[in-house]
Amino acid sequence: MSTAEFSMIEMIKEKRLGHAHSPERMAAFVQKLVAGELPDYQVAAWLMATVFQGMTLDETTELTRLVAHSGEVLDLSTIPGPCVDKHSTGGVGDKVTLVFAPLLAVCGATVAKLSGRGLGHTGGTIDKLEAIPGFNTSLTDEQFLQQLRDHRVAVAGQTKDLAPADGILYALRDVTNTVESIPLIAVSVLSKKIAAGADAILLDVKAGSGAFMPTVESAKELSRVMLEVGDRLGKKVICVVTGMDQPLGHEVGHANEVAEAIATLKGEGPADLTDLCIHLGGLLLAASGVTRTAAEGEVRLKAAIADGSALQKFREMIVAQGGDPAVVDDPTLMPQPKFRIPVPARASGYVQRLDALTVGGAGKLLGAGRMTKGEAIDLAVGIHLSKKEGDRVEAGEPLGFLLANDEAKAAAAAEVLQQAYTIGAAQPTLEPLVKAVLGPESLVGAR
Amino acid sequence: MSTAEFSMIEMIKEKRLGHAHSPERMAAFVQKLVAGELPDYQVAAWLMATVFQGMTLDETTELTRLVAHSGEVLDLSTIPGPCVDKHSTGGVGDKVTLVFAPLLAVCGATVAKLSGRGLGHTGGTIDKLEAIPGFNTSLTDEQFLQQLRDHRVAVAGQTKDLAPADGILYALRDVTNTVESIPLIAVSVLSKKIAAGADAILLDVKAGSGAFMPTVESAKELSRVMLEVGDRLGKKVICVVTGMDQPLGHEVGHANEVAEAIATLKGEGPADLTDLCIHLGGLLLAASGVTRTAAEGEVRLKAAIADGSALQKFREMIVAQGGDPAVVDDPTLMPQPKFRIPVPARASGYVQRLDALTVGGAGKLLGAGRMTKGEAIDLAVGIHLSKKEGDRVEAGEPLGFLLANDEAKAAAAAEVLQQAYTIGAAQPTLEPLVKAVLGPESLVGAR
Repeated sequence: MSTAEFSMIEMIKEKRLGHAHSPERMAAFVQKLVAGELPDYQVAAWLMATVFQGMTLDETTELTRLVAHSGEVLDLSTIPGPCVDKHSTGGVGDKVTLVFAPLLAVCGATVAKLSGRGLGHTGGTIDKLEAIPGFNTSLTDEQFLQQLRDHRVAVAGQTKDLAPADGILYALRDVTNTVESIPLIAVSVLSKKIAAGADAILLDVKAGSGAFMPTVESAKELSRVMLEVGDRLGKKVICVVTGMDQPLGHEVGHANEVAEAIATLKGEGPADLTDLCIHLGGLLLAASGVTRTAAEGEVRLKAAIADGSALQKFREMIVAQGGDPAVVDDPTLMPQPKFRIPVPARASGYVQRLDALTVGGAGKLLGAGRMTKGEAIDLAVGIHLSKKEGDRVEAGEPLGFLLANDEAKAAAAAEVLQQAYTIGAAQPTLEPLVKAVLGPESLVGAR
Repeated sequence: MSTAEFSMIEMIKEKRLGHAHSPERMAAFVQKLVAGELPDYQVAAWLMATVFQGMTLDETTELTRLVAHSGEVLDLSTIPGPCVDKHSTGGVGDKVTLVFAPLLAVCGATVAKLSGRGLGHTGGTIDKLEAIPGFNTSLTDEQFLQQLRDHRVAVAGQTKDLAPADGILYALRDVTNTVESIPLIAVSVLSKKIAAGADAILLDVKAGSGAFMPTVESAKELSRVMLEVGDRLGKKVICVVTGMDQPLGHEVGHANEVAEAIATLKGEGPADLTDLCIHLGGLLLAASGVTRTAAEGEVRLKAAIADGSALQKFREMIVAQGGDPAVVDDPTLMPQPKFRIPVPARASGYVQRLDALTVGGAGKLLGAGRMTKGEAIDLAVGIHLSKKEGDRVEAGEPLGFLLANDEAKAAAAAEVLQQAYTIGAAQPTLEPLVKAVLGPESLVGAR
């Protein structure tokens, strides 16, 4: 089908009636979508029909491929070693990439990480790294590739429009309540990662109220689709189903999160963050063929922390990107807040729940987030969480501290932080952070 | 819910999940829709969700009421007698209204008919009436109401924007493949008729390939919904399920259709048109309470044709609207074509099928239709169909005649008219025109 023969009304009808699209029709669709030739209302109707009728694995695979190639696809073929990447839904306090990138690079994988700037309660990985004085996240393609050849690790801001068709579809899904569709989510997540060029991809699939997937079972279903589509497109995909959790570690913000990542690379980080990085890292080393098993990968990762080589790799990455490596020894060289204001518990008991999004809301009030593109972020401010789920707290004892530059903003943020905590008499049973792991092997066995 | 609190995304989600909308939410929706405050893509997503999830009878009723009142609602309370109206999907060669209006008016009903101009292969009722020299279809509200008081019948062009919300929704449904939804069709059809103010409404529901409803069963389902919604809104509704038929009568066009209507009012019309008008008219007289039964209504209608009173009423209506009543005695006073060109059969046999839409296409080629608003129509041209389904024809004998003003156009139209006819050896069994009738009584009994 040429684009001249393409009819969007026919495509809507085909999907409404539950029929599968041909590769030719989908190719014309993506081409016209990126060219801006399809009316929003027709794309919206097609999206809703797809929410109801779904897509076959063949359709999902082909649409993923087409969307991935709707713009530039990063060519990492000149880079040594298996290239790995990680997708996260960008949870509050998610500094995994900061730890992950140097840790995997020193263990034999190449970590080519292109990140967008965060939109929301707190900034993204790129914003956090800019808390390091001099750190340059705006690399040209050549600088990025050369750094990968020299150091096997680079974390930079996305300059090119990777998978632009996904951006168009996602913007429309967001405002038409058509986000909740397994094939559409799979296409969105995988197309961007495929455009970013990695061989092995770790995908974090959130499950629970407020996540795309309401249950662990539905998150596993999405994972199985992404594994199969990834496999058909020649990518090693691992999916980790996690809960809609409290923030990882104790720090939410920018400079303070970098400091916590540095502590983790030194072997002095919080257990939840450290364990998750080792667990996921082991899986990715095995999936990319660096080690034979995930357990072997974990041993190597732990050793890299223990012998200081992971920290050294982080230092090396900072230098390569023009930053001041002295922050590794003295994190206070990064922007610091004027005030550290305790937020005392109003009652005694156990922390039953610590709501990540509400914590993020408090961070936003302090100036740690942006809601529109280009808005400035205060890299010094944030929240230190002293108490986390399952911890005992006495009335008057600090739940956490606000890292603030403005006392009025802090007063408002304190109230929001109070609301993030649910304190009760009973000691709660903590759910495991990782609910399920699905990888190439599990595809072969019983699902 | 105030319109300020209204969220279109929430409304889409509610429908996507299969929940019913509250009257308040639908009221805010219609208000914002007419104010132009809802993005097309959100309305499109909601329409597609509605196609899949449907609506409850409560929702359909309330949305019909709201859409009917989204603009002006004609107030016929000062008009004597029960006011009746008729909805037709505007088939090719459908001159039922021309016969119906004077016939029912002389039998005791008031026929207040507001029509749009036809868009398609041939014009609408208003266009046809303009073939009568001097006939004025642009009446003010006051002129229209006064004519109803004086003569119980008026057929005029719609000047006000009746049910504007329906126009907005319909335009979007047409381009997003969301037409096929029983509740959405019911809302569209009934809201316009309710805005037009009648007490008793006859609805023609087409069934078959190419119609909104693909089967007689689905057409009956739509009918039952419209009956129930009409009943809840205080309207007497009758639904007649008909096939996607060959054109009614022998004439397709404008002046020639008016001439055929006049012949029918004289008792000299084609059997299919005459029988249908009597059948439907009897139902409507009974439904509006003018007669006790449909059979009694039929007797009265036949008498009105036989004694000349129906024809006299048509004459009266023409005079009231400024037209020349002499056309009743001499139809050639209406625009006449330069040429009457026979289209000979290419084979002998029986007419198995005469496709109405293709006949309409031939009429369009001759200049009898318009595809965009405001386009001029040639009221003299059209098609006379000599042979209809079931008729025997010999090769060389005329299938019909093109009433043309342009020989080149006629040559093209002749080819299309040939394609409208399917001729075969076997004598076909003719299907009845009316497949089912559903009225208030049938709602009470078993459906």
